[in-house]
Amino acid sequence: MYKVGIFDSGVGGLTVLKKINEKIPNSHILYYGDSINAPYGDMEEVDIKNLCLKIGAFLYRNQVDAIVIACNTATAASITELKEKFPIPIIGTIEPGVKAALKTTKNGCVAVIATPASVKMNAYKNIFDIHAPENNTLIQKDCKLLCPMIEKGWEELHGNYLTDEIIRLYLETIPERVDTLVLGCTHYPIIKDNISKYFKKNIVDPASETAEELLRKLSKSRPKNAHLEEGKLEFIVSGDKDLFLNFAEPFLGKKIEKIYNLNLNS
Amino acid sequence: MYKVGIFDSGVGGLTVLKKINEKIPNSHILYYGDSINAPYGDMEEVDIKNLCLKIGAFLYRNQVDAIVIACNTATAASITELKEKFPIPIIGTIEPGVKAALKTTKNGCVAVIATPASVKMNAYKNIFDIHAPENNTLIQKDCKLLCPMIEKGWEELHGNYLTDEIIRLYLETIPERVDTLVLGCTHYPIIKDNISKYFKKNIVDPASETAEELLRKLSKSRPKNAHLEEGKLEFIVSGDKDLFLNFAEPFLGKKIEKIYNLNLNS
Repeated sequence: MYKVGIFDSGVGGLTVLKKINEKIPNSHILYYGDSINAPYGDMEEVDIKNLCLKIGAFLYRNQVDAIVIACNTATAASITELKEKFPIPIIGTIEPGVKAALKTTKNGCVAVIATPASVKMNAYKNIFDIHAPENNTLIQKDCKLLCPMIEKGWEELHGNYLTDEIIRLYLETIPERVDTLVLGCTHYPIIKDNISKYFKKNIVDPASETAEELLRKLSKSRPKNAHLEEGKLEFIVSGDKDLFLNFAEPFLGKKIEKIYNLNLNS
Repeated sequence: MYKVGIFDSGVGGLTVLKKINEKIPNSHILYYGDSINAPYGDMEEVDIKNLCLKIGAFLYRNQVDAIVIACNTATAASITELKEKFPIPIIGTIEPGVKAALKTTKNGCVAVIATPASVKMNAYKNIFDIHAPENNTLIQKDCKLLCPMIEKGWEELHGNYLTDEIIRLYLETIPERVDTLVLGCTHYPIIKDNISKYFKKNIVDPASETAEELLRKLSKSRPKNAHLEEGKLEFIVSGDKDLFLNFAEPFLGKKIEKIYNLNLNS
């Protein structure tokens, strides 16, 4: 059985975990949610990279067969270094996101909504320019409030009133010609229903394509953990366990039995 | 001594009360904060009008010499009817706001930020068109989240992070040529410092001009309450008293001795 390490700055990566669980149900998943440092999207690149290297080392020590960086900002900041350091498949969300968008767009006009850090690092632009035909264009839109809004549960506090208006404000400046919107942060699929009220064309969630990519990479290697018999989920969070569970259990639709507290930075 | 009735949907009217207190320190003020129905800015015009007529009748029964509608939305919805019903000076915030803006603007390009209801009623546009020279223009900008953000204390919950970004989103679409911004909701002066980070030209708070207008109107009449000797403040709120006091006492810089609970709608 394959053991897969997944990490994110908090709950966003659960949207990727869910897709992986659907595509590879008989795997053992070790999820690290660095919620004490969330959101990564407002931090400096070097600080994000340092956090990701610590998490990568932790997952690698725990014998995972592959690491999924279930966070776009973390992918942009650290995928190159993680690939250099650890001799196992390392899968990010950005390249799968770009590929899914290029498969979807009809007119080559794509927009991506992402965190300030992702936009500053040109996370999607750099990869888009490698894969896209020359006449295609990508607009990057920094949506500073969306990730903390989800991570901190503002919707529960204030209802759709706040969520919808903030989404409207971000999306109203996206040009009419854009036919495909990439959810360039793994938190955003959680509010996809709200987003689709204000962007009524194609919405791409990179999570499916990321899970496919993981499956392709894993199928080329033999599992390190052949002795493990039953697929299971293990969670480690750096911040408050209950806060994480409050969101994760209803979102995944199952009781989480194994959750531990560990701050790799302390 | 003059007794002045002031009302608002919540705490916003306190910005007007403060100016009145500065200009007419020896008056007796009866303030009605309809916080249980706040914010008015998302309600239908007819519902706002009905609430305002009940509040106006209550203040009139309490022998006030004048009524100040310390809320732009309430002014737009009810000033005509209040003037018809009650034979005392009724002062709103919109005409003073328009006059202050026209005194301030150098190039005749004015913008007003206001609640959805005020914008829908063309609250400022209608009055601006009466008073402004022909080549002047007014842009009305609906800022749906600002009033509930202040009324519900989101800043305390989430810090400037949320407040500043929401203000930035609303203000970034105001055209460069606008040289004067009117705070078209009495809640907005509370976050004037945040607003001035994103609009660096003239910002007009109608409160001063409203207080001047009140003073002009009062000085033409003899006080009904000549027997009252000492200026005092009395508050009546329809919602939670403590929530109101938590904001009002630090804002006014004084202990509030007299505050009562009364919901005129129940």
